[in-house]
Amino acid sequence: MDMEKVNSMDFGEFVDVFGNVIEKCPLVAAAVWSQRPFSGLEDLEKHFFDFIDALPRSGHEGILRCHPDLAGRDLQQGTLTAESLREQSQAGLISLDSDDRLRLQQLNALYRKRFGFPFVLAARLSDRAAVPRELARRLHCQPESELRTALGEVKKICHLRLADLLGAGPASVEPLRGWGSERQQDAPQRGHPSPEPAPAWKDNPLTHTKQVEN
Amino acid sequence: MDMEKVNSMDFGEFVDVFGNVIEKCPLVAAAVWSQRPFSGLEDLEKHFFDFIDALPRSGHEGILRCHPDLAGRDLQQGTLTAESLREQSQAGLISLDSDDRLRLQQLNALYRKRFGFPFVLAARLSDRAAVPRELARRLHCQPESELRTALGEVKKICHLRLADLLGAGPASVEPLRGWGSERQQDAPQRGHPSPEPAPAWKDNPLTHTKQVEN
Repeated sequence: MDMEKVNSMDFGEFVDVFGNVIEKCPLVAAAVWSQRPFSGLEDLEKHFFDFIDALPRSGHEGILRCHPDLAGRDLQQGTLTAESLREQSQAGLISLDSDDRLRLQQLNALYRKRFGFPFVLAARLSDRAAVPRELARRLHCQPESELRTALGEVKKICHLRLADLLGAGPASVEPLRGWGSERQQDAPQRGHPSPEPAPAWKDNPLTHTKQVEN
Repeated sequence: MDMEKVNSMDFGEFVDVFGNVIEKCPLVAAAVWSQRPFSGLEDLEKHFFDFIDALPRSGHEGILRCHPDLAGRDLQQGTLTAESLREQSQAGLISLDSDDRLRLQQLNALYRKRFGFPFVLAARLSDRAAVPRELARRLHCQPESELRTALGEVKKICHLRLADLLGAGPASVEPLRGWGSERQQDAPQRGHPSPEPAPAWKDNPLTHTKQVEN
């Protein structure tokens, strides 16, 4: 899908296509439509990020609370969104054995209790072994920094979903595996160079996802 | 459901119950959960309204764009939310003959083209004859005032849905038929007196819905 097509959409089409780029928050796409025309993926995602950034703290928490637990109730009940099901599937989370599932559910419950929102992670950039490790690590973070980390994950998910919809293809997506990681920030010459300017979350050292470099 | 029950909900339960009080915008309920405990219906709805009011203009337009057309595509395709289906049903909009449906679709299309969001009306406070009349009237309003009118309708819908969920019953809901109307504002001694302070939309003379007094 090219940007000419995107810019020609009425708001109904636009929300149909981009409404779940932020999980269960079509309000964001519906608001972003006001900002058209968009010059490209980067410009489009900037408007999504700007809208999110401008929300009050309760709105940030609200966005996070619209996300499902990884390998949680919605997966068991078959009520995941198509996008989330695909992402959790790609991370191997839909075929956990019962011990691993129980362990993840326990960690998710501890996380929700500590922070008041669910553990959000760009699952496509992770895997079944790394998810509980990262969850256990983030459980010990301070609430303020954890909120920023979680919003960084929302933005990674948004970027990947937009790239899918715009057919940007894996060439534009793969470098994400390094973007924002501490190691790559320490040594930017390593890994895949990004063909585009770094996305907003790169500036936040709290959004690193070490496990995806393993 | 009493407020003790509401205040004891974790965010998952709260979003399950109140997530569609603002049509297809669970983000709002998910944000409002941060403000608990709530003292009652009025306090709870105040937090919903405060969150909405604090959004930028694009967010206001975004909320409106998450609403379906009345007697429109979602009704034909069976993709309305349960709440919207019930409200459109109560207004007699699901059994229009083809001429009336076509007329409404044409008016809806003109409205969307003029304002960039769909025509939003608290359908339960209206009926099949009044809806196209009100739509035709609002088509001629100025964009700024029409945006305020439409947000006033969002708040009426929110109030009615909250009252349903909290079992406030028709005694608390019926007076809404007069609230915010020009006639009742001119002559407050008429109609059913409200047992509660007037809701926020009463202050906006643009949110009147004359037809519901017929």
